[in-house]
Amino acid sequence: MTSLPPSTHAATPQATPGSPPPDSVTFADLEAARQRIAEKAVVTPLLPAPELSERLGYRVLLKCENLQRTGSFKFRGAYNFLAGMTPEQRARGVVAYSSGNHAQGVAAAAAIFSAPATIVMPADAPAIKIAKTRGYGAEVLLYDRYREEREAIGEKLVAERGLTLVRPYDDPRIVAGQGTCGLEMAAQAEATRQPLDRVLVCCGGGGLTAGIALALEARSPQTRLYTCEPTGFDDTARSLSAGRRLSNAPGGRSICDALLAAQPGELTFAINAARVSGGLTVTDSEAEAAMSYAFRRLKLVLEPGGAVCLAALLANKLEIGAGETVAITLSGGNVDPARLASALENNPDP
Amino acid sequence: MTSLPPSTHAATPQATPGSPPPDSVTFADLEAARQRIAEKAVVTPLLPAPELSERLGYRVLLKCENLQRTGSFKFRGAYNFLAGMTPEQRARGVVAYSSGNHAQGVAAAAAIFSAPATIVMPADAPAIKIAKTRGYGAEVLLYDRYREEREAIGEKLVAERGLTLVRPYDDPRIVAGQGTCGLEMAAQAEATRQPLDRVLVCCGGGGLTAGIALALEARSPQTRLYTCEPTGFDDTARSLSAGRRLSNAPGGRSICDALLAAQPGELTFAINAARVSGGLTVTDSEAEAAMSYAFRRLKLVLEPGGAVCLAALLANKLEIGAGETVAITLSGGNVDPARLASALENNPDP
Repeated sequence: MTSLPPSTHAATPQATPGSPPPDSVTFADLEAARQRIAEKAVVTPLLPAPELSERLGYRVLLKCENLQRTGSFKFRGAYNFLAGMTPEQRARGVVAYSSGNHAQGVAAAAAIFSAPATIVMPADAPAIKIAKTRGYGAEVLLYDRYREEREAIGEKLVAERGLTLVRPYDDPRIVAGQGTCGLEMAAQAEATRQPLDRVLVCCGGGGLTAGIALALEARSPQTRLYTCEPTGFDDTARSLSAGRRLSNAPGGRSICDALLAAQPGELTFAINAARVSGGLTVTDSEAEAAMSYAFRRLKLVLEPGGAVCLAALLANKLEIGAGETVAITLSGGNVDPARLASALENNPDP
Repeated sequence: MTSLPPSTHAATPQATPGSPPPDSVTFADLEAARQRIAEKAVVTPLLPAPELSERLGYRVLLKCENLQRTGSFKFRGAYNFLAGMTPEQRARGVVAYSSGNHAQGVAAAAAIFSAPATIVMPADAPAIKIAKTRGYGAEVLLYDRYREEREAIGEKLVAERGLTLVRPYDDPRIVAGQGTCGLEMAAQAEATRQPLDRVLVCCGGGGLTAGIALALEARSPQTRLYTCEPTGFDDTARSLSAGRRLSNAPGGRSICDALLAAQPGELTFAINAARVSGGLTVTDSEAEAAMSYAFRRLKLVLEPGGAVCLAALLANKLEIGAGETVAITLSGGNVDPARLASALENNPDP
């Protein structure tokens, strides 16, 4: 684990109550998002995991975002964004770049509003993500993840077609939408009298982390928050330690296709730097072992990026006391059968 | 669908309030079971399924018993049974015969009480079920499903070793334990103001059906209940129509290994005959299609027998109105990876 030295806390930009900086996100934004998405999104379970808890020696709760509409938490932010657009903006259409979960979130939300959606996806995205995005009626444009800039393609479409760009994380409406996951976690933990000592979040660009951080700050302030990232894409862990945004070395590869952001978002890091206690990193093999455990024992389908928090617990990346309650996000389940089969083959133990 | 002619309702044995026949199950037994299992069992989610609901044209709720401890609802009845034994009985040990989910339920419950468990399982049971049962510390004895009588093997062990036999369904403590699933469904539906018009239950010997029938009769009396069975093992559907217990033709085969009971239980049929509106039947291919849908869209791991209610909805086995709310049990998720892979291969559409 990368611990956060106290000095970085002071160096971090923080929202001052009363005069939020531009593009900041307030707790009221999260509450508004919750009401906006209530009719369409699933309040996903915060599931007790008694066998896993007994194995690990502390209480584990699973926030099952793989059971969210579209198979990942991304629908929350995307629907919140689309719901906040004017009918005229929606009629012109939206564009998004995404490795596949934000793609489905935007495509599904756009379909609900009958808005045209164009999605820029890497050609090597999981087939299930491309097929499901097309299934929601979106136009999918494929690009080469290692040679082309998805941001440039997206911005060109904005300019040429008058579309609205729905950024995957660095946008207040997206962060507020993802924060509804944190509101639910706090309320669900309180309802079952299981105060959350720690929460682990799967982290790419940091949108889910930022949303959950804001929710817990208000509703469960004693909770310590940690990010989980794949090896080679630990930009948030290193940035938290350094107190400033650092990038990943180019050319890295990981099976965790949902978590391959080059660096933390500007907005998301401004929120997370002051609120996250540390960043954990897991290997692809550890993510695979967690996918296998989820399949065999939890009966949940997880994609690699959705399994990194479970992987961090199974691989003991964090020292956790016997009396503690730890909630982890299982952020998505859009995995190709062959990828899961390989994880199961590499981890034969039931 | 096999509809139940009105005449069979009258011909059915019914419990008279005040003087229950021996071995009957009362609503108080269900409430007692709920308290008994509360500390160890999971209150499984009654999960909204918005995309499935939009596809089918009515509201669907998923009772995710695959997310129960051991991966199926069977832990409920088994733990309730073990908790009701005396310490002396438990110290001598328990024996059960089971295709694998009751096996795990009994083995896991016995492990919690440090009671020795001997489980008689068919040699062709899914490998994951045998391995997990052994993993809970039980002694597993394999038999030939098509040549040997599991009941005879179980009763021999009772006589020779002084073990207590934990029947898979035809026992009041088992039915009461499974009924906690129905108590939860009724309470969860009420809490979210979604009164249940219909409930579909995966049916083998009828223990889960009987428990849910008793729970709904008291807590959601307007709900119509249906059983779902695999083709060739539709003994309950035919027995409901006939008003008496009928057996399946011998030699039948189905991938739904959890639902291969030869005929309805005596106790369970006495409860179900008066309370179940009809029996649905699905083919193995329909069960496979449902497993694939659950994997790709719901992100839930289902075994064939756990997918039959979902299969019945996807294959339109029941005429359901647009305004209705239908809850289905997803009763278990203990499937071998190869079996699921074959279901996914046969149903490539995401």
